[in-house]
Amino acid sequence: MVSIFTLVLGLGCAVIASAHPPNYHSSPDRLTSRANAGEQIFLGRFISTPTPDELLIQQGAVLVSSADGRGVINAVAWNVSSPAAAITALGAANGTTVVTSNDQGFFFPGFIDGHIHAPQYPNLGLFAGTLLDWLQAYTFPMESSLGNASSPMYANSTTTPDPFARAQAVYAHVIDKTLSYGTTSAAYYATVDVPATNLLASLALQKGQRAYIGRTCMDNQEYNPEYYRDESPEDALNKTLATIKHIQDIDPSGELVAPIITPRFAPAVTNQSMTMLAELANNMSLRIQAHADENVGEVKLVAEMYPESSSYVGVYDDHGLLTNRTILAHGVHMTDAEIALVAARGAGVAHCPASNSALGSGICHVRKLIDAGVTVGLGTDAAGGYSASVLETARQAFLVSRLLSFQEGQNASLSVPVTEVLYLGTMGGAKLTGMEGRLGGFAPGMLWDVQEIQLGNWETEPVDIFGWENWHDRVHKWVWNGDDRNVNRVWVGGRLVHQK
Amino acid sequence: MVSIFTLVLGLGCAVIASAHPPNYHSSPDRLTSRANAGEQIFLGRFISTPTPDELLIQQGAVLVSSADGRGVINAVAWNVSSPAAAITALGAANGTTVVTSNDQGFFFPGFIDGHIHAPQYPNLGLFAGTLLDWLQAYTFPMESSLGNASSPMYANSTTTPDPFARAQAVYAHVIDKTLSYGTTSAAYYATVDVPATNLLASLALQKGQRAYIGRTCMDNQEYNPEYYRDESPEDALNKTLATIKHIQDIDPSGELVAPIITPRFAPAVTNQSMTMLAELANNMSLRIQAHADENVGEVKLVAEMYPESSSYVGVYDDHGLLTNRTILAHGVHMTDAEIALVAARGAGVAHCPASNSALGSGICHVRKLIDAGVTVGLGTDAAGGYSASVLETARQAFLVSRLLSFQEGQNASLSVPVTEVLYLGTMGGAKLTGMEGRLGGFAPGMLWDVQEIQLGNWETEPVDIFGWENWHDRVHKWVWNGDDRNVNRVWVGGRLVHQK
Repeated sequence: MVSIFTLVLGLGCAVIASAHPPNYHSSPDRLTSRANAGEQIFLGRFISTPTPDELLIQQGAVLVSSADGRGVINAVAWNVSSPAAAITALGAANGTTVVTSNDQGFFFPGFIDGHIHAPQYPNLGLFAGTLLDWLQAYTFPMESSLGNASSPMYANSTTTPDPFARAQAVYAHVIDKTLSYGTTSAAYYATVDVPATNLLASLALQKGQRAYIGRTCMDNQEYNPEYYRDESPEDALNKTLATIKHIQDIDPSGELVAPIITPRFAPAVTNQSMTMLAELANNMSLRIQAHADENVGEVKLVAEMYPESSSYVGVYDDHGLLTNRTILAHGVHMTDAEIALVAARGAGVAHCPASNSALGSGICHVRKLIDAGVTVGLGTDAAGGYSASVLETARQAFLVSRLLSFQEGQNASLSVPVTEVLYLGTMGGAKLTGMEGRLGGFAPGMLWDVQEIQLGNWETEPVDIFGWENWHDRVHKWVWNGDDRNVNRVWVGGRLVHQK
Repeated sequence: MVSIFTLVLGLGCAVIASAHPPNYHSSPDRLTSRANAGEQIFLGRFISTPTPDELLIQQGAVLVSSADGRGVINAVAWNVSSPAAAITALGAANGTTVVTSNDQGFFFPGFIDGHIHAPQYPNLGLFAGTLLDWLQAYTFPMESSLGNASSPMYANSTTTPDPFARAQAVYAHVIDKTLSYGTTSAAYYATVDVPATNLLASLALQKGQRAYIGRTCMDNQEYNPEYYRDESPEDALNKTLATIKHIQDIDPSGELVAPIITPRFAPAVTNQSMTMLAELANNMSLRIQAHADENVGEVKLVAEMYPESSSYVGVYDDHGLLTNRTILAHGVHMTDAEIALVAARGAGVAHCPASNSALGSGICHVRKLIDAGVTVGLGTDAAGGYSASVLETARQAFLVSRLLSFQEGQNASLSVPVTEVLYLGTMGGAKLTGMEGRLGGFAPGMLWDVQEIQLGNWETEPVDIFGWENWHDRVHKWVWNGDDRNVNRVWVGGRLVHQK
């Protein structure tokens, strides 16, 4: 039904970027030396959201240099449509690999998952009560099983538990699966376990996903279960340092994988560990991630545990953890004062609507956060979220915003429409993860972290394109019914990391 | 990772039921003459929800007789596991076809979609504002394009419009796609157009989907657009009669396809047409479907248009349309008085959470409806709902109930958990469509309207089964991340109507 004008020239394009990129310190917007051996041209339709309300649809070609292992867009040429024209317009060497998206596909910036728990992945779709009950019933047992043979998960096991083997199976699958969803960057929570956390970093590097890897700090002896916690603030610090060392050893540039300081959430940590972690983050210029204001029971608990702080967010601020390098997950119940504080510190919020609905946490008031100047990205929060797909999260962001706009007097301005949820999942995520200007679009200087979306064959893909739709409508249809079947190829830093 | 104990004996089982079942008038619970040529045994794991809070997981075999074209369960034998044992236990003839689900799969009752607009299918994922705006911007143009060459959809067309060809393409695809989602029964809205509506019925019969087919009555000359309406109440009645005649001609039994009286919604019809349609439904014992209390603007409009009625639901009741054969879609804004009236009349509600969220209509208070004794099923409401999958609708039913339970003081009893959303999509739908006791489970006398769900291969399926999960957890995982890739085979009335 749809006319098929297929130009598949570079399907077998070489994997050029090294799995271990070199230490790189120069400016990210280098625009010279175009004719390197490590160059690729991407030709076809490019769709992106440069602003929250602009769905930009362009036809043309992009020159990506992977010579230094980073895979950066060096030049763009819009309105060219043939490989020869693209090579000429981009000043590339003859014979440069041309990777072409066919007429039914488009290049789209890779999704950025601002909040995902890798070790919870096997629990996707398993719920019990609200946050605090669910953590004890499902989450802590599963997370601990990736590092501790005495985890309750193994209570009825008939074979000898092998936590590291389980970590390997789970973490390899999380990365494979999220890449297949088009997630090119993720801010991962791991567990308290050092070897498993290091493994997650090594696997991300090997498989080529851009990732922040955080060992969860859980040194509160009262709150955390005996089978799953750090022994003391010093133990938490030392284990955190061990993972930082590993991650910086395997990727000294920090370009692909980097450590992130991860005090799990205020109830799980202590004043001492928070203070030490904040100093560490500050001294080493590391990013920080934590949960905040997810659930009313949790907010109440934090108020009881930290009576000296003005609010939940205030607890982090009082310990030096609220910085312009900090990602706070959820933010459902932030007060206006907390929102103002988050904005003043330049911290960001990972909006996790699928999780917030599934766990009955409530609806995060995204528009209020954005209007207050808070950076907002999306987080799948797997497995509080039932899916590790950012596209599914984007859909849920739309849906809950519609419910909120209804509830608040049919105030349409509270809706977060399709273009804006895509923006949050790409450009918003880039800001949230400190990659503003380097991820989320197709401008020169940006990294080639891109997914190729394929639409138009309803025998093999979930989106029903009848043939009469314009590209605006096709993108909307993709957002509502697309899944990994529409993700044809995925690149990170110019390296092909997934192919359907 | 998962041990695979595969027993695929009957994959090539014959399609036995006729596409045109004979007129059938005898009792549905006939349990004799088991050794007919038209018999099949289904062997494997059977999962169902006999009550809202029971997830029943059984292993065994079921004998289905299709000799009379209906495909009814004649006998069951739980706890048998081999074809030979099944044949013996069921008293079947040697050589009876045995259709086996392998160890990673299970038989599950087919989904029942209590509310779906077939002609809106191409608009899945296209939204503009709330209900009343969206109807004008997207819905009426698309619906009219299946019957009217002057539809605004064709305004910029460069070729000669062919509405009937479009209807054929759209309707064939809707049925194929919903069957692939495991939807074995659907209550369809068609359009005002007689030939296209008749076509929908013929296609459902041919493809073997159990369906109510409703020509939408839209005779209000003020409300409906000039390009898409009936000319008068008499015109509406005559066109409705024409589709009833066609549908009863092609399926005199009404077993597979049957007409349903469809006054679109109160604003679109007149007092005269409602009265005539109610008489018609009453005289011919036909079912009725309409929208009610979807959107606050719509509720206000109805109050203005029908000042003599006590409420929106009251309008239908005043015209004789609120009966124990009536399906009301949405019911988001029903007052307690309306709920009591619906319950008193024995009418049901098709809960359409995906649509209610996407269009910002609000959250339907399902628990209140159920507690008041109202029958509740699920409706995809494609394309107000962005997906024609009942499984997706079930997920959204869970999610909005969790938000509601949070909003109403963290009242956990308002949650509609996984087992109950599955119940609503099967047993609830059976009650809603007048098929209680005949659809939704595996009891003798029930029709074999069943989907075979396949779990366990994460290379080809979306659900991640690691191998350690029990079947309770596997079903939950399926509900949260399953899609048509998990639907291996689908039968309606014993006839194989879809195979992946």
